[in-house]
Amino acid sequence: MILSALLTSVGINLGLCFLFFALYSILRNQPGNITVYSPLLFNERKAQQQDEFNLERLLPSPGWVKRAWQPSEDELLSITGLDAVVFMRVFIFCVRVFTFACIIGIFILLPINFLGNQLADDFSDLPKKSLESFSISNVDDGSNRLWIHFCAAYVFTGVVCYLLYCEYNYISLKRIAYFYSSKRQPHQFTILVRGIPAPTGSSFSQTVENFFTEYHPSTYLSHTVVRRTSKIQSLINDAEKLYRKLGNLKARNSQQRFMRDGFLGLFGQKVDIVDHYEKKLEDIEDNVRLERSSLAAEEVPAAFVSFKSRFGTAIALHIQQGIDPTEWVTERAPEPKDVYWPFFSASFMKRGIFKIAVVVAYIALTILFLIPVVVVQGLTHLDQLETWLPFLKGLLSLTFVSDLVTGYLPSLILQLFLSVVPPIMILFSSMQGYISHSQIQKSACTKLLWFTVWNIFFANVLSGSALYLVNVFLEPKKIPSVLAEAVPAQASFFIAYVVTSGWTSLSSELFRLFPLLCSFMKRLFVGKDNDDDFEVPQMPYHSEIPRVLFFEILGVTYFFLAPLILPFLLVYYCLGYIIYRNQFLNVYASKFETGGKFWPIVHNSTIFSLVLMHIIAIGIFGLKKLPLASSLSIPLPVLTLIFNEYCRKRFRPIFKAYPTECLIKKDREDQNDPTMTEFLEKLATAYQDPALMPVQNSRSADGRSSPLLCAVEV
Amino acid sequence: MILSALLTSVGINLGLCFLFFALYSILRNQPGNITVYSPLLFNERKAQQQDEFNLERLLPSPGWVKRAWQPSEDELLSITGLDAVVFMRVFIFCVRVFTFACIIGIFILLPINFLGNQLADDFSDLPKKSLESFSISNVDDGSNRLWIHFCAAYVFTGVVCYLLYCEYNYISLKRIAYFYSSKRQPHQFTILVRGIPAPTGSSFSQTVENFFTEYHPSTYLSHTVVRRTSKIQSLINDAEKLYRKLGNLKARNSQQRFMRDGFLGLFGQKVDIVDHYEKKLEDIEDNVRLERSSLAAEEVPAAFVSFKSRFGTAIALHIQQGIDPTEWVTERAPEPKDVYWPFFSASFMKRGIFKIAVVVAYIALTILFLIPVVVVQGLTHLDQLETWLPFLKGLLSLTFVSDLVTGYLPSLILQLFLSVVPPIMILFSSMQGYISHSQIQKSACTKLLWFTVWNIFFANVLSGSALYLVNVFLEPKKIPSVLAEAVPAQASFFIAYVVTSGWTSLSSELFRLFPLLCSFMKRLFVGKDNDDDFEVPQMPYHSEIPRVLFFEILGVTYFFLAPLILPFLLVYYCLGYIIYRNQFLNVYASKFETGGKFWPIVHNSTIFSLVLMHIIAIGIFGLKKLPLASSLSIPLPVLTLIFNEYCRKRFRPIFKAYPTECLIKKDREDQNDPTMTEFLEKLATAYQDPALMPVQNSRSADGRSSPLLCAVEV
Repeated sequence: MILSALLTSVGINLGLCFLFFALYSILRNQPGNITVYSPLLFNERKAQQQDEFNLERLLPSPGWVKRAWQPSEDELLSITGLDAVVFMRVFIFCVRVFTFACIIGIFILLPINFLGNQLADDFSDLPKKSLESFSISNVDDGSNRLWIHFCAAYVFTGVVCYLLYCEYNYISLKRIAYFYSSKRQPHQFTILVRGIPAPTGSSFSQTVENFFTEYHPSTYLSHTVVRRTSKIQSLINDAEKLYRKLGNLKARNSQQRFMRDGFLGLFGQKVDIVDHYEKKLEDIEDNVRLERSSLAAEEVPAAFVSFKSRFGTAIALHIQQGIDPTEWVTERAPEPKDVYWPFFSASFMKRGIFKIAVVVAYIALTILFLIPVVVVQGLTHLDQLETWLPFLKGLLSLTFVSDLVTGYLPSLILQLFLSVVPPIMILFSSMQGYISHSQIQKSACTKLLWFTVWNIFFANVLSGSALYLVNVFLEPKKIPSVLAEAVPAQASFFIAYVVTSGWTSLSSELFRLFPLLCSFMKRLFVGKDNDDDFEVPQMPYHSEIPRVLFFEILGVTYFFLAPLILPFLLVYYCLGYIIYRNQFLNVYASKFETGGKFWPIVHNSTIFSLVLMHIIAIGIFGLKKLPLASSLSIPLPVLTLIFNEYCRKRFRPIFKAYPTECLIKKDREDQNDPTMTEFLEKLATAYQDPALMPVQNSRSADGRSSPLLCAVEV
Repeated sequence: MILSALLTSVGINLGLCFLFFALYSILRNQPGNITVYSPLLFNERKAQQQDEFNLERLLPSPGWVKRAWQPSEDELLSITGLDAVVFMRVFIFCVRVFTFACIIGIFILLPINFLGNQLADDFSDLPKKSLESFSISNVDDGSNRLWIHFCAAYVFTGVVCYLLYCEYNYISLKRIAYFYSSKRQPHQFTILVRGIPAPTGSSFSQTVENFFTEYHPSTYLSHTVVRRTSKIQSLINDAEKLYRKLGNLKARNSQQRFMRDGFLGLFGQKVDIVDHYEKKLEDIEDNVRLERSSLAAEEVPAAFVSFKSRFGTAIALHIQQGIDPTEWVTERAPEPKDVYWPFFSASFMKRGIFKIAVVVAYIALTILFLIPVVVVQGLTHLDQLETWLPFLKGLLSLTFVSDLVTGYLPSLILQLFLSVVPPIMILFSSMQGYISHSQIQKSACTKLLWFTVWNIFFANVLSGSALYLVNVFLEPKKIPSVLAEAVPAQASFFIAYVVTSGWTSLSSELFRLFPLLCSFMKRLFVGKDNDDDFEVPQMPYHSEIPRVLFFEILGVTYFFLAPLILPFLLVYYCLGYIIYRNQFLNVYASKFETGGKFWPIVHNSTIFSLVLMHIIAIGIFGLKKLPLASSLSIPLPVLTLIFNEYCRKRFRPIFKAYPTECLIKKDREDQNDPTMTEFLEKLATAYQDPALMPVQNSRSADGRSSPLLCAVEV
């Protein structure tokens, strides 16, 4: 790639971004798009909704930037919760890192690279220079100027580690402060106990009761045994569907109220459909009642156990309870609405087997993902397409069409395949037996991150078959030299990747094309009356964090190899900071809160990118015939890993559990609080499986709710 | 090696063993050797000591075997503690494993190997058969008989895993039972707190007091802040030496009581030595007094904190105390006499740095150990010796001498070098900042085990330079084939190793040659009166466990490669069972008790040997042109590791801490015990640095104890 091509690409993408921004600022002012661009404000604005038309609404304005910039971090925290703040800290951290990197990279390394003579360049004018002349590949072999790169690697590592430490410290303090300022919540007083030993004679419930009154007499409060409810849940779902159908039928009034009750509604007696459905519904409700009454037999050896104080909860949580460590396994309880109920029935063994199966499936998917993609992409070769689909021959002979097909189709197919991955990762994580949505998301986030690193970074850098890649990593000795040869060669690809994929992903995040289209369609075909169905979207941390981190990994890795990538990354993170702030303030709600537990993932991936950079440094100084620099680089990864180990000891425990000091202080606050008794009473019923709770069929169009489903309580 | 040579070696070694046994049974009956062979009975027998001579004492008898065999495991447990029982379980476990292995190996695998034709044997008579014809190398390439080896590997792995599970289960139950039956001990009620934050204004002691009364008001009892006492300790040591000298001087009466006080006692004024020493002693005592009074300034940020109940202790132990995880770091307190005081001053950072330094030193020692050995061994080459020490020329030309030098010297040098290693490992472990002798021993045990595996197993098998060995392990793909080629080739060496080194080590353990010589020398030169100095020896678990386990690793690894090794191992473990039982009953006392914490090491090393066997199996089936068997062996190590993971989850927590259930049951027992108050009072002073305790100079010959040292208490 030559410089002018890069600049063209930058120009086009920048133009597109600004176009999107302008469109966004117009579209967000249209009242119809409020569910797309400001769902958080939806409810409060609905009251004062006026469809007045004025010209201002059609003019692009940068006001949203100002509004997104203004709130302080504390305001953001109070509006969105700690997770969003931590997510924004990633951008702040990256802006800091890449500002420093830019200064060193652009003002020191770039000129040195450019003045080298290693690559046989044709000394043409600047715009036609290959991007390679700006990378380390252009420095002469054995040149002493490489020592500047060497120093830059050391200094950069030091600065990044310092920033990492500060950030980890800052966020851990935020986490403690967040805990102090948090309201009493059921999950602070509750643990999940699994592996309750099979009771002899009595029920699980009795066993739990006996155990905790025996061993935690002063702190034990109550418990809720979990039941296997998948059957009831599916019955309830059926019932809800029927309600909706009934509602629709009644709304359409008595047209088409009769059908035949036989095969496909074509044969048999004519019956009143409403009657027919109501009868069906009654059957289902009978079944639900039956199931619920027979639930005692369906108890799962797991229970939510609540305690009278946070410290009492911590005691039961941290100390092994039974002699057999596979029994009475305690686990922090998630927030009630965060509980992932479906996988509760998994036993200790089953969980283990599922875990292994998921690990195997994940590794297989990650390593072999590119194979189907490459195969499908192969089909886009024109000659093959013409053989398969001969009727396209005429069409494909047009230059424009063939350009489109060969140029965009492969990347489109890759993007399509990639967009399927996050749900698969969520599926994998939910199969591993995590008990809360937030844990599933966190685990999926880690999975997706390494998936991205493997399938975008390594697959592009080493550009061989999946098995070749695996082979490289099976010969650890060769890794530095293989990477040192392959990574700089892909610099221009990744610079273009940042500009195209990175910037585009930001503007599409802001523009929300897909929800916009959905909302448009809905309004067009369905009408406006189903606003009740509207749900505020959740921030998909599991897919956003890996994307943002991947660019950081790219930046750190290419810092001294091809410093030209740095300014584009800086632009990415500055834009991202504004855009995601805007989204948090307007679009996303947080249904559950991990308390900043995503940060360790950020920390680890940064450490990984540093070590990757070091390994490449070791390799490249070897290749560039500066063996001394190569050997002197070896302490770098070692020191970085030691630093990481220190951080793990220093900060990690804070992200796992709250210390005695905090718990007891919080407990003391509650001691004199009169509302505490009430709270503890409510606690006993906080963890109820939704399948066992009375159902409000708010969605049934006639507003009628099922008296049966409501009445039956267990 | 041919069969007859092996049989000769077996004969000689068996003969030597029985000779040693016979000598032992005679020598142990001599009253003078009681400190060597029955130190445990020393004190009780001293009273009734009669030096009567009768002929019976000179006749070898197998009575000791019977006496060692008789006590049941419970009796052994009550006499020697749990660690000794666990050590004996290693033998029981190995006897079971190798009995099963022997049956399969000798009756199924050995005939198959022997009937193969792969090795060009000269079909001579049996005694001249090479040992190789009994190993898997003799089976024809691609022969279907290899499937029997394949099945044997699977069956053997299954049986070993089953036995491992049973044994782990048995020992973990024993551990719990031991806890239930144990008396109240200070370390059950105490934790060690490190990283006490620097106090503002007040002392560390006050900070600890405030913290624990604030956060553990109902359970906190008392605390002892640790002080930096290395200076006092060395002063006290000096004082003790002077006492002994004074005692000796006074015993010798006034001869030589005068010396000059100048240089080397040759110049200056004539002074009375006794006066001189007494003055010196007084100086030291003054110093000690001074040091002790200024101790407040020397407080270390660590303290032993005692609680009123075991459960209260567990609460403080398991839950992170302060917000900063590097402050208020809690750790289980060791038994008071088990505390390793010298390294208390190490800070969090210093501990970390030391840990890294030790890891580096250990890896360097392990990998490079053979280099100095090989260099020194090189000197034993006759021609080199003659060049270096020309006067030996005449001596070395004698066949007998040269045979001795070339045959025995290398292995003697290796043994000498090896005998230095256990103390080095202890030194390494004590530098890592462990706070108790038992932890140091456990850590040294693990270190020595891997050292042995590397330097005896891998160094012999791969028989290349250290760097070659490291290189092999840097290319993981090649490991199976390299091992499969090299390991069977060394079978005869290791068979001979078991017979010579293994059996000899057992008889020398029984015979205690070195202590015997020491005691003999002492009696000859010093006389009998310093019996008071006598200390019962400790079982050196850190050097014995790795030795015993190494033979197990050999046995498992060679099980299907060269089954001929199995009967010799079986003999080793049977003999070892009797001999170590005898030693535990007569020789070794246990100063501290880990409660069976050595077992996980045994478990892990067995798993390691299984996986090593599997890797070799994968390689060897490949080499033997049975690729299907090779691929079908891949699940073996995976399954084994999964089994290991399961065991880790199932049993490991029991070896780390006692569960709530046990703690509370034990606490309830104490509640109504009237002696509890007394015990809790004593607890406050249980953890005293010996340097700060009054010194009883029982060793000073005149019986005079130092009034100063006794009087000064802090």
